[in-house]
Amino acid sequence: MEITEDGVCIGNFRAYGVREGKYGVALILNDEVCESVGVFTKNKVNGASVPIDKEKLKRGGIRAVIANSGNANCCTKTALEDAKRMCEIAGEKLGIDADSILVASTGIIGKKLDVLKIKELVDKIDREHEGSSNASKAIMTTDTYPKQISVNYRGIKIGGVAKGAGMIAPDLATMLCFLTTNADFGKEELQTALENAVEDSFNMLSVDGDMSTNDTVILMSNRSHECKFEDFCYALNFVARELAKLIAKDGEGATKFLEIEVKNAKSRENARKGARAIISSPLVKTAIFGENPNWGRIVSALGSVIEVDFDKIDIIFSNDKDKTKVVEKGVTGDLEKAHEILKSREIRIVVNLHDGDENAVAYGCDLTYSYVKINAEYN
Amino acid sequence: MEITEDGVCIGNFRAYGVREGKYGVALILNDEVCESVGVFTKNKVNGASVPIDKEKLKRGGIRAVIANSGNANCCTKTALEDAKRMCEIAGEKLGIDADSILVASTGIIGKKLDVLKIKELVDKIDREHEGSSNASKAIMTTDTYPKQISVNYRGIKIGGVAKGAGMIAPDLATMLCFLTTNADFGKEELQTALENAVEDSFNMLSVDGDMSTNDTVILMSNRSHECKFEDFCYALNFVARELAKLIAKDGEGATKFLEIEVKNAKSRENARKGARAIISSPLVKTAIFGENPNWGRIVSALGSVIEVDFDKIDIIFSNDKDKTKVVEKGVTGDLEKAHEILKSREIRIVVNLHDGDENAVAYGCDLTYSYVKINAEYN
Repeated sequence: MEITEDGVCIGNFRAYGVREGKYGVALILNDEVCESVGVFTKNKVNGASVPIDKEKLKRGGIRAVIANSGNANCCTKTALEDAKRMCEIAGEKLGIDADSILVASTGIIGKKLDVLKIKELVDKIDREHEGSSNASKAIMTTDTYPKQISVNYRGIKIGGVAKGAGMIAPDLATMLCFLTTNADFGKEELQTALENAVEDSFNMLSVDGDMSTNDTVILMSNRSHECKFEDFCYALNFVARELAKLIAKDGEGATKFLEIEVKNAKSRENARKGARAIISSPLVKTAIFGENPNWGRIVSALGSVIEVDFDKIDIIFSNDKDKTKVVEKGVTGDLEKAHEILKSREIRIVVNLHDGDENAVAYGCDLTYSYVKINAEYN
Repeated sequence: MEITEDGVCIGNFRAYGVREGKYGVALILNDEVCESVGVFTKNKVNGASVPIDKEKLKRGGIRAVIANSGNANCCTKTALEDAKRMCEIAGEKLGIDADSILVASTGIIGKKLDVLKIKELVDKIDREHEGSSNASKAIMTTDTYPKQISVNYRGIKIGGVAKGAGMIAPDLATMLCFLTTNADFGKEELQTALENAVEDSFNMLSVDGDMSTNDTVILMSNRSHECKFEDFCYALNFVARELAKLIAKDGEGATKFLEIEVKNAKSRENARKGARAIISSPLVKTAIFGENPNWGRIVSALGSVIEVDFDKIDIIFSNDKDKTKVVEKGVTGDLEKAHEILKSREIRIVVNLHDGDENAVAYGCDLTYSYVKINAEYN
C-alpha cells in the first residue's frame, strides 16, 4: 500500500476550500460525470443535504460536491431550499449544472443557514488555488487538524478527506467524508464496497455516543482504472479505517486515542457490540483519561450488551512499546504496569473472550474536561 | 400523601449503619419473616449478590439485608464465597439464620472484597443505635448526601433508602434501593407492584449511560396492613420516583437536575425511548451544564431513536418560576429567556411531539468537569 500526497485530488479530481472564522466551504469536482454512491446517518432527523443527496445519487450524473461547516442546515423551515441554493451557488461558480452537485453540511442544528455567507465564501474561491488540504481545512468544525489521506494500491487510487470531531457515535459516526477513486466499477459494486468499508471503520467509531443528523460518506469514481473488486475493497477499507482513526484521535477534547479489540467472540455481532459498548462507555473513557486501569468498567460495559464468561477472559493493555495482561482468565494482573501503559497517547485494549473466533475493532478516545468545555460552550 | 420521617424504619423494621472512609455496611431487619421481592440489573456480568439474592427470594423466608459500599464484590474468584460470608457475619450479629439475609454490594469492580473489614464494621454496629439515616449513609459511594424517604398513604406505610451516583443508566440505573412496607400482599403482587414502580422511576434515570453489574431494588413487606392494591401501587410509585429524583439530583458531578418529558408520542415505547435518549445524550447534558439552549441536540437525540416530524414539535424549557417555548411547531423561540431558565438548579424540558397521546418522563443531570474528575480518579 503506497501512501501518496494527493488527498482527494487523485487523477482529474480537484478540490477547493475557503474558511473564515467558524464558517468554511469546500468544493470537490471532476471534469466529467462520476459514478457516485453514499452512506448516510440513521438518525430520523436529517439535515436537508441528506434527502437531497439520496435523491441525486439515485438519479446519477454527479460531478461535484459542495460542503460547508459552521451550520448543519437542519431543523429550519428553509433548510431544503437553502441546500438547493448551495448547489446553485456551486454550479454558478463551477459553470456546471446544479443537479450534478451533491451537498453536505456540518455545524449547529436549528439555526438558519446564512446563504449569503456561503455565496461570499464560494466567491472567494480562487480556481487557480486548488488542493485537497484546503478542502479538508474548510470542512473542520471543532476538529483541531485537517484529515486526509490517499493511496495507490496496484494502480487503484483512492483519496479522502473527512471531518469529526463530536456527536460521534457508531452507526454512523458524525462526520463528513468525501472519497474519490479511479476504480472502474458501477453503482452497485461501489455501494457494496463503500458499505463494507464503513462497517468496519466509521461504524466502529465513537467519541460521545451521540448520533448526528448530517453524517455523510460520499464515494465518487471517475472509472479510469480497471481492477479486481477485492483489491479495490482492500484499499478502500484501508483508507476508511485510517480516516476513522484520524477522527478518533481528534475527538473533542481527546488526550488519548483508543483502539478496542474484542477477540474470539461467539459471533461477529457479539464482537462488534462488545467493542462498541466499551468504546462508548463514559466510565471507561474517564478512567483512561485518568490513566486509571479500572478494568472492571470494561467488563461491565461488555456485560451490558453480551453474555460474558468472566473466568475465561483475558484483557491486555498495550502501547507501541509494551503490553501487559491486566486480567488473565479472570484474575487481575499487574496494574502498576497497566498504569504506565495508560500514560501513552495511543492505547490498545484487547479483550479476549475465548468463546469463539470472531473479532472486531472499535476506535475512540478518552472523555476529558475539554470535551465538557467544548460542548458546554458550542453554539 | 403524608411524608413521614421514618425512612426505611417503618413499623417494626429497623436499620443500622456504620461507615469508615469509603467503606460502609448497612443492615435492615425485621422481627419476623417478610414477604420479599426484588428487581436486578440486566447486565450479564453480575456482582455475586445478584444470583444469591435471586435464589433466596425464590425460596423465601427473608428477614434482613446486609449491604456494603466501597466494593462491588464482582469479577473476583472468591466473590460468591465472600457474599455468603457477608450473610453469615450479619447472621451472627443479628442472631438469625444467614439464609434469611439478602446481600447487596456497591463500589469498585474486580477487587477482592475485604471480608475482615466487613466483619470489623459489623462488629462496630451498636444495636441500640438504630436509624434509617445511618443505613442510608453507610451505602453511599460517590453520593454527596444520603437518600431516604417514607410515606403514609391511607395507612399504607412505605419507606426506602437508596444510593446513586454514577454508572447510572436506564434499565436499570446503577443503584441500590431497599424498600419496606406494611402492605399485606403476597409475592406475586409485590413483584408486579415493584416492577411497575421501577419502570417509571429507576428505569427512566440516567447519569452517564453506563449499566452497573450490581443494581438491586429490594422490597420487603411485614404484611401488617390490609389495603387496596391500587393504593399500594400509587404510594410505591411515588416513593420510587422520589428516590429516583434524589439519585438524579446527586448524579456524579451534577450541578443541575433535569426532568425530560416526551409528550403526545404515538406509543408509550416511543415516549420512553425518546425521553431516555435525551436524558442520556452527553451533548444535551454538556449544553445544559453550559446553560446553552442548544435545542438542536435534543431533536437529534430524539431522532436517533424514534421517527420525528420536526414541523409539529414544541419544546418547552421551564424552572419553578418561568417557562418558554424554545421551539414552537418547528420554529425557534426566545433563546435569551431559555438561557435564563437554564441558570436554574432544576430544569424541566417538555418535548411535545403532537403525534399521539402517550407520555413519559425521564430523570437525570448535566455532564460536568466534576463528573470527569470523579471518574478519572475513582478507584
